[in-house]
Amino acid sequence: MEIIKGGVCAAKGFKANGIHCGIRRNKSKRDLSLIYSEKLCNAAAVYTTNLVKGAPLLVTKENIKNGKAQAVICNSGNANTCNANGVEIATKACEYLSNQLKIDKADVVVASTGVIGQPLDITPIKDGIPELVNGLGNDKSLEAAEGIMTTDTKLKEIAVRFEIGGKECKIGGIAKGSGMIHPNMATMLVFITTDCAISGEMLQKALSTDIASTFNMISIDGDTSTNDMVVVLANGLAENNEITRDGEDFNTFMKALNTVCVDLCRKITADGEGATKLLECKVTGAETLDIAKTVAKSVVCSSLTKAAMFGSDANWGRVLCAIGYSGAKVDVTKIDVCFKSNKGEVSVCKNGSGVDFSEEKAKEILLQDEIEILVNLNSGDYASIAWGCDLTYDYVKINGDYRT
Amino acid sequence: MEIIKGGVCAAKGFKANGIHCGIRRNKSKRDLSLIYSEKLCNAAAVYTTNLVKGAPLLVTKENIKNGKAQAVICNSGNANTCNANGVEIATKACEYLSNQLKIDKADVVVASTGVIGQPLDITPIKDGIPELVNGLGNDKSLEAAEGIMTTDTKLKEIAVRFEIGGKECKIGGIAKGSGMIHPNMATMLVFITTDCAISGEMLQKALSTDIASTFNMISIDGDTSTNDMVVVLANGLAENNEITRDGEDFNTFMKALNTVCVDLCRKITADGEGATKLLECKVTGAETLDIAKTVAKSVVCSSLTKAAMFGSDANWGRVLCAIGYSGAKVDVTKIDVCFKSNKGEVSVCKNGSGVDFSEEKAKEILLQDEIEILVNLNSGDYASIAWGCDLTYDYVKINGDYRT
Repeated sequence: MEIIKGGVCAAKGFKANGIHCGIRRNKSKRDLSLIYSEKLCNAAAVYTTNLVKGAPLLVTKENIKNGKAQAVICNSGNANTCNANGVEIATKACEYLSNQLKIDKADVVVASTGVIGQPLDITPIKDGIPELVNGLGNDKSLEAAEGIMTTDTKLKEIAVRFEIGGKECKIGGIAKGSGMIHPNMATMLVFITTDCAISGEMLQKALSTDIASTFNMISIDGDTSTNDMVVVLANGLAENNEITRDGEDFNTFMKALNTVCVDLCRKITADGEGATKLLECKVTGAETLDIAKTVAKSVVCSSLTKAAMFGSDANWGRVLCAIGYSGAKVDVTKIDVCFKSNKGEVSVCKNGSGVDFSEEKAKEILLQDEIEILVNLNSGDYASIAWGCDLTYDYVKINGDYRT
Repeated sequence: MEIIKGGVCAAKGFKANGIHCGIRRNKSKRDLSLIYSEKLCNAAAVYTTNLVKGAPLLVTKENIKNGKAQAVICNSGNANTCNANGVEIATKACEYLSNQLKIDKADVVVASTGVIGQPLDITPIKDGIPELVNGLGNDKSLEAAEGIMTTDTKLKEIAVRFEIGGKECKIGGIAKGSGMIHPNMATMLVFITTDCAISGEMLQKALSTDIASTFNMISIDGDTSTNDMVVVLANGLAENNEITRDGEDFNTFMKALNTVCVDLCRKITADGEGATKLLECKVTGAETLDIAKTVAKSVVCSSLTKAAMFGSDANWGRVLCAIGYSGAKVDVTKIDVCFKSNKGEVSVCKNGSGVDFSEEKAKEILLQDEIEILVNLNSGDYASIAWGCDLTYDYVKINGDYRT
């Protein structure tokens, strides 16, 4: 497997685009994105578990029910959620796009991200669709990635090449993250494309399995969004024998999908709202997988731990505290904790009690951009990783006055 | 019932004191507090649910098992948690105090608050105890309240007078709050004293019942501390007929206790780390009490809602979002939301969708110190209140480098 360029356009037969259509006031910001496959795709998706669901999500769920899709349209700047006419607007977006692309309107995935509860005017979307479609290119993944950004500061895209039965396959994705992100089924917006031939059923299985250890293991701020979804489109143009069951080919596909998803998870959390650091909590020695996951998530979700990491403060008591209230049954007296980065590793807690360590060394380690919090529960063989970010002044600033 | 002065010294037979003994470097900060009853008390307590428990909490649990206590000693500046010799230190503190007071060492409640995982030296406590005891006064509730503060910026005390069977009774309390506070059984440190005669069993019943709607309904930052407890001491010196069963007298006592607890809840959240505003989420129209509580807590715990409140931004979509991911089964299309303060009230959401409102009016309302978030689920008769605070730059600042 090899990491390549191209994002959602890396796989054969996929084109993309992103334009400014006028939903956002700032004309230099793209606010409408499109991903299009020349061939109808098998499609799989997972959605937010929030009971308040964005209207586009409801429309997408309906459209994708038959396991097929051919295009993804997504606007930023407005979530089209908690609006009385939300479903109507999302449906219209699918209609206008399908007319322009000459595809079935039921084969469109529609998504929105931005402020909740402000009516979304269809006019800029309707008026923008011709330009959006006419500008489609197989080198415009970046434009599409830009068009779905909200408070994101960095583009998030990745692609990899792999082989199935002697045929070269590619899979790539783009994502938007930033805030309102919490591990609870399909957080944020992620669009993944592949030319690998795989049945709809196996595609959904691959996605649902993968997110348990990727997108469900990240948190920016504990708020599970109303609009989030992860969608994978597979158009089969790689011409491998279609994957229709478990086995070596499926495992190869899973590995490629996982590489894409882990990369996007890391990019999403590293670029969390106001974040200056990626936090990676690696739990080992757990009695069960569930315990490993619960502990890892609790640590990256702890406001106090996140704030301490912002200050590069080796305040490991907060890590212990977060493990203690996680709800996981752990033997506190067996817990070891280390902090690690590219500057080295420091052990701060053994058997649930503090150990002497060099504050200077710890500071040097914690001043880096990517921090690993290593937790060994010393009670079994299960392990898990969760990703998060630090809590900073800028998180507060960004969210203290998001709408204006 | 009438609010009076005196805090934990309001009730007959209680004295208190707070001194600087040297645990904290800053000599102007008191760091050791004592509450003492001239008569042995019936005692009730609730503790943190965090699996990582401070050593003092373990010692207190053991001491209070027989339902009796006569003194409370509490230091700030060090949590005495995750230390290999923690229990030994906490036990010694009880011993030294009991020797000085000439009471049974098993009648001492011991508590600590501060940094986790740093060894606590018994020397300043041992050396400070004579001064602490000799300085006891029936007008020193404030000194005791000061001695348990960590990052608290305001003293938290309250007392009320009430009557049972023609006898005047008093109940008062002090609290420390600030950070690592989340609704999950007995958050933060609260010490309550009363001269009301009430059996140990009924005292525990009163406390356990009350916290379900008070201390379990507050959150500063979602982190449940390792050291928190609420303790009530009742010495019976009011000479009312001892309350030994449900009935009018018990209800009167419950009402007084609740007045004290609600007041301390509001003071704790209004003075949350970095907080500029008290948030009070009042949920009505819930199908069950559990739904009402879950929704109210989720709203005051939402980082995004808290940050919006800091910015006086009427971003009600975040309130809806927090209700949606709360886990409570609600009909989103029935939810109404209003913001309210001493400047008036503004309706922002009806039946789950936005309504037109004056942003100017909303801003004026949200610029106040105490904000009510009114959520009507329009699905039943249950109601609940949760208290929280806004998320601010100062929360990050305080916690980015707490130890230094």
